[in-house]
Amino acid sequence: MIILKLGGSIITKKDANKPTVDYDHLQRIAKEIKHAHVSDLIVVHGAGSFGHPFAREYAIGKPLSLKDDFQIKRIGFSLTQSWVKKLNSIVCDALRDVGIPAVSIQPSSFITTYHKRIHKGDIALIKYYVDKGFVPVIYGDVVLDDDPTLQVAVLSGDQIVTYLAKNLLPGRVILGTDVDGVFNKNPQEYQDYYLIKKLSSLQELESWDNNQTVDVTGGMLGKLEELLELAQLGIESEIINAGRKSLIRDALQGKKVRGTVIKK
Amino acid sequence: MIILKLGGSIITKKDANKPTVDYDHLQRIAKEIKHAHVSDLIVVHGAGSFGHPFAREYAIGKPLSLKDDFQIKRIGFSLTQSWVKKLNSIVCDALRDVGIPAVSIQPSSFITTYHKRIHKGDIALIKYYVDKGFVPVIYGDVVLDDDPTLQVAVLSGDQIVTYLAKNLLPGRVILGTDVDGVFNKNPQEYQDYYLIKKLSSLQELESWDNNQTVDVTGGMLGKLEELLELAQLGIESEIINAGRKSLIRDALQGKKVRGTVIKK
Repeated sequence: MIILKLGGSIITKKDANKPTVDYDHLQRIAKEIKHAHVSDLIVVHGAGSFGHPFAREYAIGKPLSLKDDFQIKRIGFSLTQSWVKKLNSIVCDALRDVGIPAVSIQPSSFITTYHKRIHKGDIALIKYYVDKGFVPVIYGDVVLDDDPTLQVAVLSGDQIVTYLAKNLLPGRVILGTDVDGVFNKNPQEYQDYYLIKKLSSLQELESWDNNQTVDVTGGMLGKLEELLELAQLGIESEIINAGRKSLIRDALQGKKVRGTVIKK
Repeated sequence: MIILKLGGSIITKKDANKPTVDYDHLQRIAKEIKHAHVSDLIVVHGAGSFGHPFAREYAIGKPLSLKDDFQIKRIGFSLTQSWVKKLNSIVCDALRDVGIPAVSIQPSSFITTYHKRIHKGDIALIKYYVDKGFVPVIYGDVVLDDDPTLQVAVLSGDQIVTYLAKNLLPGRVILGTDVDGVFNKNPQEYQDYYLIKKLSSLQELESWDNNQTVDVTGGMLGKLEELLELAQLGIESEIINAGRKSLIRDALQGKKVRGTVIKK
C-alpha cells in the first residue's frame, strides 16, 4: 500500500484571496497517478486556499475566549467544512475523470481530536475501500475536539497521513509538496544551500546549520515532526516536489527521485 | 431532539434529466427551519435527481453479473457519491446562509450495509455534534455492502432516518415529502380519496382498499415500512407536505398540521 499526500500548496493557489484550484497541477497529477498503475493507494490532500483563510478568520483550534462567541465559531466551522469538502469533490472528480475510482472520505464524519491530535477515528472502512479496489481520498478538515477549551480543531492532511500510516503500515509514504524537499539552508536567501537527502531527526537538521536558516518554516516543520514520528516506527517516507513533471508518477512506480527521505 | 427528513423530490427537481436543485423549496425550507427555533435537530435529506439517475445507470445495489464489470461499478459508485455530496453541500450552504450551523455528515465515510440494510455505523459523533449546538445534515448515499454478491449499495435517506431514530430515540420524526401524506386511494385517479390521518400497519392500509389503488407506490411504501418499524418501538412519526408553505415550520414547532401520523 502507498499513502500519497498532495499538498494544498500544489493543488490550490495557496496565496489566492479566495479558494482557487490549481487545475494544471491537479489534472497533470491525476494523470500521473493513473499512469503509475499502483494498486492499494490512499490519497490524502491538504486544504490550501480552501481551508486556511476560513480556519484563520474563525480561529478554529484557538481557545475560546468568551462563551457566547461559539455560535460564530460554529458558523465558521460549517463554512470551513463546506469549502474543504468542495475542494475534495474537485480532487475526486479529477481522479475519476482519468478513470480512477476515487471515493471521498470526510474526516469530520468519523474523526475527533483531543487537543488537536486524533483521538477517535475508525479507519477500518478506509482499508475496506482499498481492498475493494477503490482509491480513498481523505483530506485536511475541521473536526470536533474533546478539549473543552477548544471544542473544534483543524485536522491537517499531514496528521492524517501519520495516523493512517501508523495504523495501516503502508509500504511507502510519499508527500508531494511545492518544494524539492528539506534544505540545509533557505534557498531563497543563501547560495550554498543543498538538498538533504536523508533525515533521521530534527537534531540532525539543527546540527547542519543553525535552526533559523534551515528551511523548516511554516508547514515543513509540522510535516517533519509527523514523518520523524513515523520513521521511529520503521515507516519510511519521502518529500518530493509534486510541482515537477513526472515526479509523482516516478515515485509511485518506485523509482528514485529527487527529494528528502525520512528514515531512522 | 427532532429528526427532519427533506425528501429528494422536494429539494431537487426529481424528474429533471440532470441534477437540478429546487432552490425555491430549499431556501424557503431553510428559513422555516431557522424560524422554528428548534434546538437539537438532525436533518436528513434524499438524493432526488442528484442520485437516482446515476445509481440506476450503474445498477448500484443490484447483484454483480460478471466479475469484470466491477471496475465500471466502482466508477459509478464514485460518480454517484460525488453528486449526492454536491447536493449535500448545497443543502448545508442554504442552511448556513440563514444562520444555521449545518455540519455535513457523509454516510459513506462510516456506514456499511449488509444486503442493503445498515450493518455498521457509529452515530455517537452525530449526537456529539447536536450536543455542541450544530445541526448535522446527513443524506442518502452509496455505501459498501458486506454481501459479496452486491459489494455496493444505495443507502436511502429513509433508512438513515429509521437508523438514527432507533439509536437516538428522538422526541419526533418529521418527513417532509411532496405529498400531503398517505391516501386511501390515488388522488390522481379517484375522486373519493381521503388522507389517512393515522396509520398503524400496512395491513390496515390494505383493509381500506385493495393494494393496487392505495397510493403506496414508489418511495412511499419503503417510507411506510421504515416508519412502521419505528412505530413498533414507540417512536411516532409524521409525513407532511414540505412543498406547502409553513408546514415544516409549524410541524417543527409542534403544531398539528395536515399529514399522516404513523404510530402504534
